[in-house]
Amino acid sequence: MKNNSTFALRGSICYSLDAETLAAEEHAYVVCENGVCAGVFQELPSRFQGIPCTDTGSSIIIPGLTDLHLHAPQYSLRGTKMDLELLDWLNAVAFPEETKYSDLTYAEQAYRIFTEDLKKSPTTRACIFGTLHVKATELLMDLTEETGIKAYIGKVNMDRNGPAELQEADAQASSQATVQWLTDISGKYENVKPILTPRFIPSCSDELMGELSDIQKKYRLPVQSHLSENPGETLWVQELCPDSSFYGDAYDRFGLFGGDSCPTIMAHCVYSSDREIALMKKRGVYVAHCPQSNMNLSSGIAPARKFLDQGLHTGLGTDIAGGHTLSMFRAIADAVQVSKLHWRLMEESQKALTFAEAFYMATIGGGSFFGKAGSFLPGYEFDALILDDSLFPHPQPLSVPERLERLTYLGGDQCVTGKYVSGRKIF
Amino acid sequence: MKNNSTFALRGSICYSLDAETLAAEEHAYVVCENGVCAGVFQELPSRFQGIPCTDTGSSIIIPGLTDLHLHAPQYSLRGTKMDLELLDWLNAVAFPEETKYSDLTYAEQAYRIFTEDLKKSPTTRACIFGTLHVKATELLMDLTEETGIKAYIGKVNMDRNGPAELQEADAQASSQATVQWLTDISGKYENVKPILTPRFIPSCSDELMGELSDIQKKYRLPVQSHLSENPGETLWVQELCPDSSFYGDAYDRFGLFGGDSCPTIMAHCVYSSDREIALMKKRGVYVAHCPQSNMNLSSGIAPARKFLDQGLHTGLGTDIAGGHTLSMFRAIADAVQVSKLHWRLMEESQKALTFAEAFYMATIGGGSFFGKAGSFLPGYEFDALILDDSLFPHPQPLSVPERLERLTYLGGDQCVTGKYVSGRKIF
Repeated sequence: MKNNSTFALRGSICYSLDAETLAAEEHAYVVCENGVCAGVFQELPSRFQGIPCTDTGSSIIIPGLTDLHLHAPQYSLRGTKMDLELLDWLNAVAFPEETKYSDLTYAEQAYRIFTEDLKKSPTTRACIFGTLHVKATELLMDLTEETGIKAYIGKVNMDRNGPAELQEADAQASSQATVQWLTDISGKYENVKPILTPRFIPSCSDELMGELSDIQKKYRLPVQSHLSENPGETLWVQELCPDSSFYGDAYDRFGLFGGDSCPTIMAHCVYSSDREIALMKKRGVYVAHCPQSNMNLSSGIAPARKFLDQGLHTGLGTDIAGGHTLSMFRAIADAVQVSKLHWRLMEESQKALTFAEAFYMATIGGGSFFGKAGSFLPGYEFDALILDDSLFPHPQPLSVPERLERLTYLGGDQCVTGKYVSGRKIF
Repeated sequence: MKNNSTFALRGSICYSLDAETLAAEEHAYVVCENGVCAGVFQELPSRFQGIPCTDTGSSIIIPGLTDLHLHAPQYSLRGTKMDLELLDWLNAVAFPEETKYSDLTYAEQAYRIFTEDLKKSPTTRACIFGTLHVKATELLMDLTEETGIKAYIGKVNMDRNGPAELQEADAQASSQATVQWLTDISGKYENVKPILTPRFIPSCSDELMGELSDIQKKYRLPVQSHLSENPGETLWVQELCPDSSFYGDAYDRFGLFGGDSCPTIMAHCVYSSDREIALMKKRGVYVAHCPQSNMNLSSGIAPARKFLDQGLHTGLGTDIAGGHTLSMFRAIADAVQVSKLHWRLMEESQKALTFAEAFYMATIGGGSFFGKAGSFLPGYEFDALILDDSLFPHPQPLSVPERLERLTYLGGDQCVTGKYVSGRKIF
């Protein structure tokens, strides 16, 4: 559906020019022309004279934020049972919860809570894991479509090492269910799209990976999965895949690790070796850096500075429910905080992230997985947030970037008073 | 003033029995008798039949939280300029802001924002740094008194290594200003009390420390300061105090490091040696563990598990504005999170903190600096929070401790619908 909306927003506009540089203009206009950003202007150019304009007063206007990795079915258990490491947590907490989504009544109740919160959040684009259940994943897609948010959503594949209640019978069954899902939803949505979602190597047999490789090629799907999150998991993958040189190679052997025809997101990469990072760079694989989850599951701290320095595509993910909050503002602050601990405790040659760098990751960094998204440079999809930070009064004058940094730390989700995705007003 | 209020609250009651154990009772009563907790009951005992009772429905009722370390004048700059280490941050950010408090108009504007937020927060008791300014500190005490929260508040002492605009002329001047302050406020307040507050060793000459030692003895004041927060700071103290065996010894030489007649709080203790910890244990010195600040200022991670194992008094502090939020719920979650990174990255023999342990630190751990505070065991001061977590809906049943853990992670400050301090209703 063509988007014919053309309008301007006026306020204190702040956005990334590149990974290091925040641009900020007060009392400026950002123009949406048919869903696409036409640029930021101190005065409206003559060709835009007379278009509808909303003056947001002293509000800050920023590009929308992209959550590059989260598990919708785990939203229900966020913030509980936080005392386990990844593999134990999957077996004791996450898998039992995901099992419940075979029940569509439960799924609808849980996914309505999730999508209502997602709509109100600062997230404009997201890459989302469902469960292995076809019908529940379709329901999640239906409900996400209604929010107006752009999302890739994946039915999860898993045919080994899970509980009997949360495992597909075999590779064939998993493959057939995936094709069924893709057939069911074909042409159905405007905002949401399917993404191939092998859970992680320990959950997917070689046979299943082969099937998924065929499906990926046939349907030209992007891929999302997990990589090198936890020491125990990484060792286990070595045992499971003795022929793979490293964890990422276990995806790459099946052509499911990036490249022009297979855009791929890998979550975490806490323990990625230099060889793994080099292959990710070569294949254009996106890192979904999930600092909060990496703390909660005692995984460690991913080398985000190295990702930036090496030129990897790097975005941020909340990783609900390894992470406990849907807030991408919190993800930005967490990324800065853990990078300081990484510098102090692990590698003093790798400087901590600046606020501008983490903000870039949450906007252009992850947004670029969707094409041109995450900036107010001309030609970008018009995703925007209007932020009213007056609930955090201050006695001294502050610059726009200072106000943005401050609301990011103080709980920016409460500040979101308006949200646009591709020029459409969400609220 | 005697507190004659006797009443009951009914709801889902949750509190620490000891450092490891959370007690939880649904549909139970907690009774306040003349400002003191009479206990938790499934049925009201006959002697309490007929007392006023507020049924909070499904709300959770917990003891109040104690913030053992924060800087009120820095509240204005929280969440900004977060890219520096301690000593650089003090010089570039914190000291210039504190300088402004010589202007009482600015101080009133800033302290009104701070105290209004403190009143709404889950904090019922706090240990607060002011600035070196006598009048501004008295203003802070006036405004805090009005909130009904119990607080120790200190006029800061600093006579060296500061900027000219934020330094007292000499030890005598600092000492005289302190006595002036103590004289001005004598007998003035019910809720707030003075606490001796040498900023930290680098800010206080030996002569000043000697003067403060005399004042401490004469006025029988408790003491708060900073200890072993940052590697650069700790090295500097070694240079400044070549006769001291370790940082804490530089306080101890002046009798300002705990003991029965000198209750003392030391913030941070990230780099405390075993000898320092042993002396803290011997002297009963309180650790104010400030995990968020220790991340934001790239300080590191304090060995909280070791503090607990060694039996040190350990509470939590927000350390506004090294920390960016006044939320003691966030401090609890942060304490758990960084302890997981400490386990993973620093010392696998030191297990991560459990939620119950961090909750204990925020209640009894810090509360005990004020006497019997932080529990619903009989005889404790009746500090209570009523928490409505219905803004975080969930599809599955959750136990009371699970709900408490969850709201702690999800932003519990928004859940506080009622607050009592020593039996007085704050709101």
